Amino acid sequence: MSSISIFGLGAMGTALARTLLKNGHTVTVWNRTRSRAEPLAGAGAKIAESPTEAIAASELTILCLVDYPAARAVLEQAQEALAGRDLLNLTNGTPGDARELGTWLAARGAIYLDGGIMAIPPMIGGAGALILYSGSRALFDRHSSTLEALAESRHLGEDEGLASLYDIALLSGMYGLFSGFLHASALVTSAGGKAVDFLPLLLPWIEAMSGTLPDLAGKIDSGMHGRDVVSNIAMQKIALENIVRASEEQGVAPDFMRPMLRLAGDRVDSGGHGDDISAVVEVIRKRK
Amino acid sequence: MSSISIFGLGAMGTALARTLLKNGHTVTVWNRTRSRAEPLAGAGAKIAESPTEAIAASELTILCLVDYPAARAVLEQAQEALAGRDLLNLTNGTPGDARELGTWLAARGAIYLDGGIMAIPPMIGGAGALILYSGSRALFDRHSSTLEALAESRHLGEDEGLASLYDIALLSGMYGLFSGFLHASALVTSAGGKAVDFLPLLLPWIEAMSGTLPDLAGKIDSGMHGRDVVSNIAMQKIALENIVRASEEQGVAPDFMRPMLRLAGDRVDSGGHGDDISAVVEVIRKRK
Ligand SMILES: NC(=O)c1ccc[n+]([C@@H]2O[C@H](COP(=O)([O-])OP(=O)(O)OC[C@H]3O[C@@H](n4cnc5c(N)ncnc54)[C@H](OP(=O)(O)O)[C@@H]3O)[C@@H](O)[C@H]2O)c1
Ligand SMILES: NC(=O)c1ccc[n+]([C@@H]2O[C@H](COP(=O)([O-])OP(=O)(O)OC[C@H]3O[C@@H](n4cnc5c(N)ncnc54)[C@H](OP(=O)(O)O)[C@@H]3O)[C@@H](O)[C@H]2O)c1
Repeated sequence: MSSISIFGLGAMGTALARTLLKNGHTVTVWNRTRSRAEPLAGAGAKIAESPTEAIAASELTILCLVDYPAARAVLEQAQEALAGRDLLNLTNGTPGDARELGTWLAARGAIYLDGGIMAIPPMIGGAGALILYSGSRALFDRHSSTLEALAESRHLGEDEGLASLYDIALLSGMYGLFSGFLHASALVTSAGGKAVDFLPLLLPWIEAMSGTLPDLAGKIDSGMHGRDVVSNIAMQKIALENIVRASEEQGVAPDFMRPMLRLAGDRVDSGGHGDDISAVVEVIRKRK
Repeated sequence: MSSISIFGLGAMGTALARTLLKNGHTVTVWNRTRSRAEPLAGAGAKIAESPTEAIAASELTILCLVDYPAARAVLEQAQEALAGRDLLNLTNGTPGDARELGTWLAARGAIYLDGGIMAIPPMIGGAGALILYSGSRALFDRHSSTLEALAESRHLGEDEGLASLYDIALLSGMYGLFSGFLHASALVTSAGGKAVDFLPLLLPWIEAMSGTLPDLAGKIDSGMHGRDVVSNIAMQKIALENIVRASEEQGVAPDFMRPMLRLAGDRVDSGGHGDDISAVVEVIRKRK
């Protein structure tokens, strides 16, 4: 068993703290708004009076705050405590944010691991939760059994930005899924249907269409977007126009569908009408 | 066994024709570009010399063309053959398009069924393919065993627009999935990774996040977006800002992610920061 301090007791920080307590670890917590820490004290956590005290209290400190500026603000209050300490930052940000914080911490003698949580709070400590890590492999190895209690762990490399890059890529996948789901739900409910009743149609369809992603991924990697195409982008552009028109008929703003229509249209206009939809990757890459 | 005529021998029409031939039906085909019909003649199909001849040849005529204007153009060439005929239109369009074609065909004495194919061509005739139907239930019942050979069939109601509405809703779900996948693939490949290698991370994540859709659907149906929220929209808005910043760091245009950021931001600005992401439905409904 080891000692862990947690900064940030929002939905996620609280789930991390409860899981570590349940696993028998010594947990110290600090939150800007102290009242949010009280329920955890009842579950066995110690409440630190300051960021400095929290960092000094444990072998590992985990940050799980709303954003990097918040993380930095808290760490600045504890600069004298940082030298030689193990810090794990699970706050969401960009690869650049993670590298910058890594540099700042290194200058103060701290050891830094960055992480991206691929789970929602109720999944923490259960099957299906994954945390991606990058940065100090030594820190990761030192605390690996503690980290395994939270989620399946994967260390992607010493470059601190890697976990964030893959986290952001996975979140992009999720927000795409959510965009389509929200648009579809708005359409179905606009005609008096229920979003819940639509799911038995949508979920198997999403699963079936997920089955086409390996083929599209192969086209992205090879750049051969015109090979063995069963759904050409010119036809798909018309389907996208139909989606936009149908949305307007139903009083649903087509904001989520317009980018694909525009980007597919760009590809068709530049001569790629026989390509697969994978070719849109070339369009979003070009427009830097 | 029955006789079926097929108009349109693109990727999908060809898959329909081949599957019906394989099932022992008498198949007549017509395509604007005659050369695309030749390979099917080799597989046993008759080639009609005109749309009129094709409609007259069979008990059921299936249209699978690029769009409604094309379908209408073909039918106008065969007006004298329409009275009393069974017509199934599997061309993608809006609910309004389907109702308009239904009215036009009814005025010419034809019986009309509309359909939306929820499959890609290689899935036709196999497990997992679904075709949604609406319009004449009598036509659907008359040809149900023929239609079952193509895909699982579901008749949604007599309103000709229903199949299209649900088709468009499912396609929206698919294009959301594809948007997220393409954006994620652009990010991963921008850092030297392969889209194919990323799938073993992405696919289980999409499956896990699909598991959150029933909760979001319940919030959409009840309008209670602030109940039992584990991922508040204010926090998600920051994650979306991070996605956009990370994309810019990596040289990927954030077109696919901007609508969610903007719509989530609208909800936060109007006081909904504690809501779940389901609340975005209210924003796209409002903006008519
Ligand atoms: N919830 C999820 O589904 C989920 C999933 C994966 C990853 N994450 C990531 O986990 C992190 C935390 O998310 P969450 O859901 O726990 O968010 P949350 O419930 O909104 O909690 C935000 C936390 O940040 C603190 N905070 C905000 N501004 C601060 C400042 N200026 N100084 C110090 N503390 C500040 C808050 O303290 P106060 O109590 O004082 O406001 C609170 O502890 C985010 O980076 C998020 O992307 C969340
Ligand atoms: N492929 C899929 O993945 C898929 C999945 C579900 C639904 N669908 C739907 O199925 C329909 C057909 O798609 P597809 O993939 O087969 O498209 P496609 O391969 O592009 O074929 C288009 C067909 O439309 C014909 N056509 C175009 N303009 C015409 C006109 N003015 N007059 C007469 N014929 C015309 C073409 O004839 P020519 O040979 O003379 O050009 C060809 O037969 C679309 O509504 C599509 O949304 C397709």
